[in-house]
Amino acid sequence: MENDAWQLQVYLDEKIKVVNSALDNYLPKAETLPASLHDSMRYSVFAGGKRIRPILMLAACETVGGNVANVLPAACAIEMIHSYSLIHDDLPAMDDDNFRRGIPTNHKVYGEATAILAGDGLLTEAFILLSNPATCGSIPLTDIREIIHILAKSAGSMGMVGGQVVDMEAEEKPIDLPTLEYIHTHKTGALILAAIEIGAILGGATAEQRKALSNYGKNAGLAFQVADDILDIVADQSQLGKDVGSDQERGKATYPALLGLTGARQRAADLHGQALTALEQFDESARPLREIASFIVNRSF
Amino acid sequence: MENDAWQLQVYLDEKIKVVNSALDNYLPKAETLPASLHDSMRYSVFAGGKRIRPILMLAACETVGGNVANVLPAACAIEMIHSYSLIHDDLPAMDDDNFRRGIPTNHKVYGEATAILAGDGLLTEAFILLSNPATCGSIPLTDIREIIHILAKSAGSMGMVGGQVVDMEAEEKPIDLPTLEYIHTHKTGALILAAIEIGAILGGATAEQRKALSNYGKNAGLAFQVADDILDIVADQSQLGKDVGSDQERGKATYPALLGLTGARQRAADLHGQALTALEQFDESARPLREIASFIVNRSF
Repeated sequence: MENDAWQLQVYLDEKIKVVNSALDNYLPKAETLPASLHDSMRYSVFAGGKRIRPILMLAACETVGGNVANVLPAACAIEMIHSYSLIHDDLPAMDDDNFRRGIPTNHKVYGEATAILAGDGLLTEAFILLSNPATCGSIPLTDIREIIHILAKSAGSMGMVGGQVVDMEAEEKPIDLPTLEYIHTHKTGALILAAIEIGAILGGATAEQRKALSNYGKNAGLAFQVADDILDIVADQSQLGKDVGSDQERGKATYPALLGLTGARQRAADLHGQALTALEQFDESARPLREIASFIVNRSF
Repeated sequence: MENDAWQLQVYLDEKIKVVNSALDNYLPKAETLPASLHDSMRYSVFAGGKRIRPILMLAACETVGGNVANVLPAACAIEMIHSYSLIHDDLPAMDDDNFRRGIPTNHKVYGEATAILAGDGLLTEAFILLSNPATCGSIPLTDIREIIHILAKSAGSMGMVGGQVVDMEAEEKPIDLPTLEYIHTHKTGALILAAIEIGAILGGATAEQRKALSNYGKNAGLAFQVADDILDIVADQSQLGKDVGSDQERGKATYPALLGLTGARQRAADLHGQALTALEQFDESARPLREIASFIVNRSF
């Protein structure tokens, strides 16, 4: 990096700032009635997320030469959906987690009922935002329809929510690799892929560019999850913000459990390679996507 | 009714059949993976709902001479959202209800985690459906955008979800009439109003017609809730499918509690009158809406 002005962390920090400012702008203010609900919604959205999905969306848009300003509402919508999914996943009836990113989970602060409703509110807010002419008026209506459809499908019962159900059902019983991949391509992969696809659409990608970016999204999304599984075993608690080995304790199937640590790392490396291959047709404009894929995988080595 | 061939019950039965058949068609099949999730989603949607919201939407469309076929996807979407809200409302962390419409609530059958996710899945499915060109391809894109916006806003943190939060917070403490009306205009009124507005839009209503129908929707929606509060006190359990007086037991504020039974019935009658006045500009085409308003109020007398 010494002879190179471009730095991933600078890029990420800049994008996080843009996304956080847009989220603050689009979300109902904390004092909007009912204040407890909006305060709770904001608590989880601003609980220190890495904004991976919005940043991937912005980077995909930039890769095809699109205007980032057009993507910001959709980038915020996908982060609202991600935040809602974490609130519901953490509930006592689900993963029963007390901490997330080092701070108490939503239901520990606001109570279970408000946490359920804050999740419902955030999911719904994503669609309010994308259908709002005041914020998305410059996006062609055909694109509006398509990105709402992609986002809803990726979040729904055959996407993220479906992945969460299979994940729950897989607890405390032996599962095989295809089931594990089903869980991850749905529970986390679907929304990551949607982020890339929406960025491509709003950036004005050609059909060929869109296909390449989708391939990147599939591989990078799964690599992200494999890396996460590895991190759960090898990281410090300070690095993770949650209990180390908490997946293991809960009897959750993970890549290291099924493939061993070396096998899991090989899988992550393979997916990383495929993600980079998918980007071959792009020039320097794809640098952020390339570096993000490398960052995802390298943090687990 | 003797000299009159038109009967409300026949109208309602016919519409229920049409709506149920469309819901069956639009919802993922019960065996779609994950089957437990889709089975759970279907369980609550087909648990004997009266389809008030979809029928109001169809009737509003017919009032302005529109084609009912155009409205069916949106009618099903609003019923999915209504079903999701009931599943989440019944959860132990919320109203903790064991029965709904005479059968066990979703979480009693499928467990809390799946019930939360079934609700999430149904809410999301509504937006998958409305943005699907295969089902809504004949609706102009400007209308698609607008009905998604109306539906999401009515269901969101400043609509239905907001009403539920204030309702919860009002338990076990004295509340005044404005707070009670806030709860009802948000918790149930918003979605009923959205049903009417979407029916008007997709039926091709003029601005004036739309305004009249919205007025009807506001008054009929609130009348529905006042009548529900009265029914909770005076109905047989067999009529209600839930425990009589369960709102009272829970310390929930109701119209009869604040206004007395006579006062509450007067309020219902006033709202009924205003709903009918709003429809004055329409001829026989508004008959279903008129009769539905009367039915809503009369069942509580």
